[in-house]
Amino acid sequence: MPSFRLTVAYDGTGLVGWQRQANGLSVQGLLESAATALDGRAVAVAGAGRTDAGVHALGQVASLSLVREMDAPALVRALNAHLPPAVRVIDAEAVAASFHARFDATSKTYRYHLWTGVVLPPLLRHVAWHVPAPDLRIADMDGAARLLEGRHDFAAFQSTGSEVTSTTRTLYSSRVRPVAIREADGLMAGLCAGALIAYEVCGDGFLRHMVRSVVGTLVDVGRGREEPAWVLRLLAACNRSQAGPAAPAGGLCLVRVSYEANDRGTNG
Amino acid sequence: MPSFRLTVAYDGTGLVGWQRQANGLSVQGLLESAATALDGRAVAVAGAGRTDAGVHALGQVASLSLVREMDAPALVRALNAHLPPAVRVIDAEAVAASFHARFDATSKTYRYHLWTGVVLPPLLRHVAWHVPAPDLRIADMDGAARLLEGRHDFAAFQSTGSEVTSTTRTLYSSRVRPVAIREADGLMAGLCAGALIAYEVCGDGFLRHMVRSVVGTLVDVGRGREEPAWVLRLLAACNRSQAGPAAPAGGLCLVRVSYEANDRGTNG
Repeated sequence: MPSFRLTVAYDGTGLVGWQRQANGLSVQGLLESAATALDGRAVAVAGAGRTDAGVHALGQVASLSLVREMDAPALVRALNAHLPPAVRVIDAEAVAASFHARFDATSKTYRYHLWTGVVLPPLLRHVAWHVPAPDLRIADMDGAARLLEGRHDFAAFQSTGSEVTSTTRTLYSSRVRPVAIREADGLMAGLCAGALIAYEVCGDGFLRHMVRSVVGTLVDVGRGREEPAWVLRLLAACNRSQAGPAAPAGGLCLVRVSYEANDRGTNG
Repeated sequence: MPSFRLTVAYDGTGLVGWQRQANGLSVQGLLESAATALDGRAVAVAGAGRTDAGVHALGQVASLSLVREMDAPALVRALNAHLPPAVRVIDAEAVAASFHARFDATSKTYRYHLWTGVVLPPLLRHVAWHVPAPDLRIADMDGAARLLEGRHDFAAFQSTGSEVTSTTRTLYSSRVRPVAIREADGLMAGLCAGALIAYEVCGDGFLRHMVRSVVGTLVDVGRGREEPAWVLRLLAACNRSQAGPAAPAGGLCLVRVSYEANDRGTNG
């Protein structure tokens, strides 16, 4: 019974998120339907991160087992033939049947994009949050972001109604930086004036809406409403109602998932 | 009667193109409706480049005249308040009433993106043409592209059914290059393996479907079906049926329009 680890990318715009739901297109549902069509029996697909509606992925990881014998490149081709262009299997690798995309993950890296120009470029509108504040204090945001690195109780950054046994997580890296858009680089060369800012965070796990709540909080710091040290008081208070509002889903992207104990996501 | 030059960006996905049409959303139609709502009378908007359905713009230029007195920043805000997020006025500048976005343009720069990896990343699917040929001969494509620089009769690269008095145009620059996607740069950092390639062309004018026909031809060269010098024979033959097929609209973007006689688009 061959088992595989899939690397999956998607444009979350218009999808209901990773998790299969009664209504709407989910990434899990689309992958399970594609795998079921291939294998002739119901195939369950597990995902490393349960991304919300509108959240994108460059390197989500999923695991599945088939009855039918198939090599990895053939599986990539066959799954993609059944998937819409908004969801693509980038890579597949044969793994032990015991491999589980979520339970075996040692770290995940998310990136969140903000556009601080007065006008939001149309081609960025589904992948960046528009914060029209050209004077956003990026250094203060980075200072606050770094204070979250390490092992903390992140209850203050969890959405209400979540049920998890522990709200303690470890962030290996939590940084805010301006993103250069150079004329020679990438699709966005030639964008109108304005700054693209990225928050990138790598951790051993994330609570529901945690990254987006952290981003909303960092923007409050960037606007000068709070000092960077505010985030330490938020961590200590463990009270969701005190942190900033959750940032919109579209700015968020699951960049990669790592499975090596020594890998903090930088080469995953 | 204040007149303005607008810089306009749009995501062409789902639009019928620049030009107002009986059915569907056009950029011209959306801008004219927005300006008409502001000015309380029918306002005509002229555009520098009549981009096709699905073609994007980072720096389209449009001209209009109003009856109502308004300064440029207020006009940007007011137009954007009436436009959908897929179309944004980036900038406005007061100009002489005689200014015409199309007739006064001295050069236009278009960029076309190709993705040569086996799998097309979902976030690129509306902005790049998928040519799954990792061994595409980029140097040959660039060689062929450069042979088009200068003043030529481009009848071979015009779509059938066009009616123009002259098919002679001057290309100031016509180049193919790989686009670096570095970890530190831009939104696309972390994309799956595969090469993003850009064709960038600056000229005094373009025939209908000319850039896309050139790109289709360059890809035939990149695949090794033809030698770079083939494009010279195509130019000489002036016969559309001999060139490569037009590349899809989504890969094309109008990057900028220049109005200075000495400006070949590099600083426009």
